[in-house]
Amino acid sequence: MTRILIRGATVLTMDDEMSILPRACVAIEAENIEAVGQEPAGKWDEVIEADGRVALPGFVNAHTHAAMTLVRGYADDLELQPWLQEKIWPMEAMLNREDVRWGTLLAIAEMLRGGVTTFNDMYYFYDAVAQAVEESGMRACLSGVLLGFLPTAERDLEQAVEFANHWRGRADGRVETMLGPHALYTVPEPLMKKVVEAAKRLGVGLHIHLSENKREVEDSLQQHGLTPVAHCERLGIFEAGPVLAAHCVHCDEKDIEILARCGVGVSHNPGSNMKLANGAAPVPEMLKAGVKVGLGTDGAASNNNLDLLEEARLAALLHKLTHSDPTILPAEKVLFMATRGGAAALGLDDKIGQIKPGMKADLILLDMNQPHLTPLHHVTSQIVYSARASDVRTVIVNGRILLREGQLLTIDEEAVMKECSRRANELARGERPGRH
Amino acid sequence: MTRILIRGATVLTMDDEMSILPRACVAIEAENIEAVGQEPAGKWDEVIEADGRVALPGFVNAHTHAAMTLVRGYADDLELQPWLQEKIWPMEAMLNREDVRWGTLLAIAEMLRGGVTTFNDMYYFYDAVAQAVEESGMRACLSGVLLGFLPTAERDLEQAVEFANHWRGRADGRVETMLGPHALYTVPEPLMKKVVEAAKRLGVGLHIHLSENKREVEDSLQQHGLTPVAHCERLGIFEAGPVLAAHCVHCDEKDIEILARCGVGVSHNPGSNMKLANGAAPVPEMLKAGVKVGLGTDGAASNNNLDLLEEARLAALLHKLTHSDPTILPAEKVLFMATRGGAAALGLDDKIGQIKPGMKADLILLDMNQPHLTPLHHVTSQIVYSARASDVRTVIVNGRILLREGQLLTIDEEAVMKECSRRANELARGERPGRH
Repeated sequence: MTRILIRGATVLTMDDEMSILPRACVAIEAENIEAVGQEPAGKWDEVIEADGRVALPGFVNAHTHAAMTLVRGYADDLELQPWLQEKIWPMEAMLNREDVRWGTLLAIAEMLRGGVTTFNDMYYFYDAVAQAVEESGMRACLSGVLLGFLPTAERDLEQAVEFANHWRGRADGRVETMLGPHALYTVPEPLMKKVVEAAKRLGVGLHIHLSENKREVEDSLQQHGLTPVAHCERLGIFEAGPVLAAHCVHCDEKDIEILARCGVGVSHNPGSNMKLANGAAPVPEMLKAGVKVGLGTDGAASNNNLDLLEEARLAALLHKLTHSDPTILPAEKVLFMATRGGAAALGLDDKIGQIKPGMKADLILLDMNQPHLTPLHHVTSQIVYSARASDVRTVIVNGRILLREGQLLTIDEEAVMKECSRRANELARGERPGRH
Repeated sequence: MTRILIRGATVLTMDDEMSILPRACVAIEAENIEAVGQEPAGKWDEVIEADGRVALPGFVNAHTHAAMTLVRGYADDLELQPWLQEKIWPMEAMLNREDVRWGTLLAIAEMLRGGVTTFNDMYYFYDAVAQAVEESGMRACLSGVLLGFLPTAERDLEQAVEFANHWRGRADGRVETMLGPHALYTVPEPLMKKVVEAAKRLGVGLHIHLSENKREVEDSLQQHGLTPVAHCERLGIFEAGPVLAAHCVHCDEKDIEILARCGVGVSHNPGSNMKLANGAAPVPEMLKAGVKVGLGTDGAASNNNLDLLEEARLAALLHKLTHSDPTILPAEKVLFMATRGGAAALGLDDKIGQIKPGMKADLILLDMNQPHLTPLHHVTSQIVYSARASDVRTVIVNGRILLREGQLLTIDEEAVMKECSRRANELARGERPGRH
């Protein structure tokens, strides 16, 4: 079993006490964290000298559509409907399986470089997503998107169930699966009930877009006399578990109480919510009520990068503004959301989110010896308010080094960028026969 | 005269047509841009092959307090008054001249790495700031902070005038000067009038904090029956020129009309305004009214980095949110603010802000061949919504290369970081005899 020692780092454990250990060791055995603090005895296959580095649990990107990297920057600064209907959907309709695999590899390269060690994805051609995850060494929770208005909806559900059943726990336990009913307004009740039944039967969770914009809430109130969150509860959606609800921008007090009581995980995606002008989710209120909140980038079409540190900073800044309170969401709470909070929201906090013996070895090293991170008065503050993705030097997932001193080890980055550029050009020129 | 050729870059000129030139050349002769587009004849002292790079005018940081890098992360997530009175001011009161020089060098290192080629500074020990600017090769507009409540206020004004007169146009024309009356509420009317007179006499501009928070506006309305902006106009402050007003968060329609009519330059500082929970400046409205708006980071105590690309992204996202309109402040307008807009706000747009023959050669090269910048559907969108400071590979100021392929050439970065860390530790431990 491979043993790796990280020596001399400042370790942000993200444990219950939010301990910060100066000049500490992290020992890794196979895929697990063996010890934290003192250096254990024995031989090491690799020793990482981490003077001037900070070790923390890898970031969890709680909501994304990885392969949308292919449409990054293709259409920005537009109204929601023309953006979706005239730009994004026609482009997506041309995507094929190989596009999705390449686009996901590009996303994984970017995410690893930015310290993300787990991502929660919902997309088409999910077996291609799983393949990219498997070959890259990344950890992910995957679901196929289910859209009720497609003529293939019933068959899509069958395939998604098959996928969820087949892939859960695969790739050395790095892949978890969920079912992905897109949203309440795109999946009619009868199908939604089948999805929930299937999830319960399989014992997998659900990944759903929820209360993303005002109109969704208004329509729901008009059609059902209920907010989307309350409607979810009535439909029994929250009885499947874990449920990861993306966005939850427009939630009132009662919604928040439901989310907390039902143990729903929320992915807060401030960059996407701001860019699409959807609003600011009541995150401080959710945290106060005990809702499990993580951070997500959403897809690259609405962000446009997959930089979770940027989302952390945005979260810290956004709620101070909307609450007119500079003490809201301090750095520590935000960093918790970016790591352990996201793990909890995905129901994975028994495995990841902390640097603690027995947890999976998913962790990152930041190089703090840089002008924008100098001087170092407070390490948590420094990371949230000043660090950037490029400060991530080393990334370990499931005990395996995937980024070493800025070099990706499992992805041929140049080839992936070249191939994605070629495919994106084809898509942009409409030179595709359509989905196949 | 040194001649530098940049070959093969995508050039964002920021000219009136916002031209984007594919695979173009930029020729530099001495401190000026000689030609853009085709390669001119003649010999080159240095040729930069810029395939896959984007060239654009260097960013203008329109409002900062550079030396506050020393208190970066020292106190965050606090209410404004305890933050200032218990943390920042006591720390600043201990600063000495050498602290300011080192802290400014650290800030310049960070800013150059992030593509900033001009910064507008207001601080204490401004001759030390000027020295750091001179030795680093950076371009800056400098003013000493004037606080009316200090017993030394009159003498401070004399010194600031002397400084402004001595340093303007120095360092090969890289230093411009202004007078820096801190704010309306810290500089009483009689002194403010003297400051304005002195600025007019010297023919230099003014750098002032204006309408930063709600309380400032409420107090002004109560005491003067005027908003701070209207009060400035009545005091004749806008008759000096150019005036750079930082923040302008709480401005009504009439204020905006005044700012436009008087040609006041505004530094929009979204990161600081969000972090300190001051609000969102009416930037789209200002731009519509013809106000010259640039972007600023403010000091590192309230940001916490000096990353102008981050400010650009924040600006693009923030106003979409506050206006519930995803089409507000598109990427192009934001990139304009970050470059030419800032130059105009500082009254320097005859010299910098465009890549155009005759302008000063202040420009940067971004490396677009990276996962988070792939594929490249739209270059402007990509820069604003996805690029980061670390993508800046080369920086040229006044025709001189200051950052070459990620290496700072004029600043001993390791020494500056070490010295700043040492000084910051002393300050944090209170081991200082006080200002001297």
